[in-house]
Amino acid sequence: MAKFDKSYHLFDRASKVIPGGIPGHQSPMLLVFGASPCFIERAEGARFWDVDGNEYIDYMCAYGPMVLGYNHPKVEAAARAQGKKTDTGNLPTERYVELAERLVGIVPIADWAIFGKNGSDVTTYACRVARYQTGRNKIIMIDGCYHGIGAWCTPISAGITAGETADMLTFNYNDIEQFKRIVAENKDDVAGVILTPFRHEALHDSEMPAPGFLETVRKTCDDIGGVFIVDDVRAGFRMHMGGSLEKFGVKPDLICFSKALGNGHPISACVGKESLRSAASQVFFTGSFFTSGVPMAAALATLDEMEATGAIEIMYKNGEMLKDGMLDQADTYGQQVNYTGPETIPFMTFAGEDGWDKAKVFCEECYQRGVFFHPFHNWFISSAHTEEDIKKTLDATDAAFKRVKEKMG
Amino acid sequence: MAKFDKSYHLFDRASKVIPGGIPGHQSPMLLVFGASPCFIERAEGARFWDVDGNEYIDYMCAYGPMVLGYNHPKVEAAARAQGKKTDTGNLPTERYVELAERLVGIVPIADWAIFGKNGSDVTTYACRVARYQTGRNKIIMIDGCYHGIGAWCTPISAGITAGETADMLTFNYNDIEQFKRIVAENKDDVAGVILTPFRHEALHDSEMPAPGFLETVRKTCDDIGGVFIVDDVRAGFRMHMGGSLEKFGVKPDLICFSKALGNGHPISACVGKESLRSAASQVFFTGSFFTSGVPMAAALATLDEMEATGAIEIMYKNGEMLKDGMLDQADTYGQQVNYTGPETIPFMTFAGEDGWDKAKVFCEECYQRGVFFHPFHNWFISSAHTEEDIKKTLDATDAAFKRVKEKMG
Repeated sequence: MAKFDKSYHLFDRASKVIPGGIPGHQSPMLLVFGASPCFIERAEGARFWDVDGNEYIDYMCAYGPMVLGYNHPKVEAAARAQGKKTDTGNLPTERYVELAERLVGIVPIADWAIFGKNGSDVTTYACRVARYQTGRNKIIMIDGCYHGIGAWCTPISAGITAGETADMLTFNYNDIEQFKRIVAENKDDVAGVILTPFRHEALHDSEMPAPGFLETVRKTCDDIGGVFIVDDVRAGFRMHMGGSLEKFGVKPDLICFSKALGNGHPISACVGKESLRSAASQVFFTGSFFTSGVPMAAALATLDEMEATGAIEIMYKNGEMLKDGMLDQADTYGQQVNYTGPETIPFMTFAGEDGWDKAKVFCEECYQRGVFFHPFHNWFISSAHTEEDIKKTLDATDAAFKRVKEKMG
Repeated sequence: MAKFDKSYHLFDRASKVIPGGIPGHQSPMLLVFGASPCFIERAEGARFWDVDGNEYIDYMCAYGPMVLGYNHPKVEAAARAQGKKTDTGNLPTERYVELAERLVGIVPIADWAIFGKNGSDVTTYACRVARYQTGRNKIIMIDGCYHGIGAWCTPISAGITAGETADMLTFNYNDIEQFKRIVAENKDDVAGVILTPFRHEALHDSEMPAPGFLETVRKTCDDIGGVFIVDDVRAGFRMHMGGSLEKFGVKPDLICFSKALGNGHPISACVGKESLRSAASQVFFTGSFFTSGVPMAAALATLDEMEATGAIEIMYKNGEMLKDGMLDQADTYGQQVNYTGPETIPFMTFAGEDGWDKAKVFCEECYQRGVFFHPFHNWFISSAHTEEDIKKTLDATDAAFKRVKEKMG
């Protein structure tokens, strides 16, 4: 039996000096409290080891950043080489220009790029660009959609003022009629629309865009002169190298990237169309670490390696193998499941669950068998996952489905 | 003559793919355009080399982050050791707990700590904690004070809505009577006050707190149940290891750190009093890279090295030597100057200048002589600056004062 003694000892220490112990998305309260690890010791490829020495094949990938495998030799070599020269300085490095050129080269809609640290930096920046470009205030988003810690979108409203969210309008995902109605009611003041490439909120099955949905948003923005923003922070570089909406043949005006861009190194980017370049240069956007060289060198190496190896195809292939195997197992054990999202960013829930009891039993069994899933947040595949890893994973999930059936029917 | 050909060639390339070329505080438009470098190649200790190979003794220290010297061997060794294990993962590392414990240990007011990436992350977070704690909306700040890219405080309002700044109240630095009046007029809705330890806005002489000013803010916050926030992002760890207000014997409720904390590695922190722990845990605060291990290992090594070497005392000593030398030279060349701020975060302007013409001539001459100052943003001393560096610097500034006198009288 995998034990988590050191994890919970450290969590007790953390709880004394950090509000909530581990605040945010990595809280052990959001896994299977008492039966999942709280702290990590090391990671390599598709695996990590917690502080108690337990080994896991990882399907959370640092909640997205790890896309080529942890501690990837080429990415880390590029980061080290840059780090020996300079990281954070008075001025940007040549990597800054190269990375902007690279993104403009691979993302079809991109005529320019700008860099931050957090996904939230760039989603918030994109909304400002839309507002400045149009001279209008309202941004339309999906009700409950996660775009970061900007006041306009935090999922928890503690400490947020009414004024900070006053210009946000929300509608239900894929509800084309509701979207059109909201636009019609506010059209003189709609600056833009922000969407993730598919719906991937925690605590929900993922949902792909309905036929005509993205096209309607695109056409509506064109009709009213609004800006179509894609928050590709979570999905970026796992569906298409040119931005996830390329997968659907729809062209947004601004795309926000972060997570996978640097394979774990802290960086975010907003890319956009020529028509928004001037507005983009007027919106104030700066930070002490926004031009640091190391994450940019890492991002360049990540993009190179992804293209050279066809990383997204590898992820789709492995993701399909995992999906097929788990759906077979669910069937074998008589479990109704919803397996949703792109194969590279999959999620599985037990259908009709009131609460997440089966999901937690399933994950707990997987943790014991060295496989790391999340009970109610979407998962991530990397190109470091091998067929052999998926086979081992399916051995664990077979046992986990069996356990769910035995314990909960 | 130092040439900047490669810098401006790269800037032309940047201008094609990045809005504004280099947006934000590192824009060459904010130095001496045409006569100052735009891109950095490498850095070591107190020096950096631009992409044209010009060498500089550096008094901007990456706008604050570099405090022990670039590429500091102990900090980088700690970062590398952690990086070999794990950086960004599904869970925090033990470094996360250690760093929170360390900050609680060295900062007298700190009973807890929480971590982000940007200074803006934590200044914005602190305002939310104050609002949630008090159930009130208004935050009082200094008119024109820089606290980052939060909508509530951006110095440029492009893309910011009226609602986002509606709950900010401003007053003039050190104006105790105006402060009291604003509090009296809004007291049922004042959540807190945010101040930097001294006034250090670009384009202004720095200004130290007037006698009684910080004490009045402290007492007023106590009287009305408001939260006293210190934005120590820029000054932190250059005046006092326990937070810069320790220098003045005044205890705030929340302190925001970033820049120098990781000696260039991207990290920020908010620390606070026990009474705010619960509110701090309720405010939503998370990010993909907020728990990454490498910057935390770097921060631990930075704090260790600063304490072991008495880094702040070294900086004060070198800063005094620079100040004394430059004031003597100004006198010699008949230049009226204002040399302001703490010796570790100094700034010099030519008195009565309309525009920054003398400052630019002064800086241009320094760049040619291998010393890097900023014409209208405060400077930074590091503990890597040696007496020998200061002597070499004073040779350059002597020539620069002479040049100013020759050219502009």
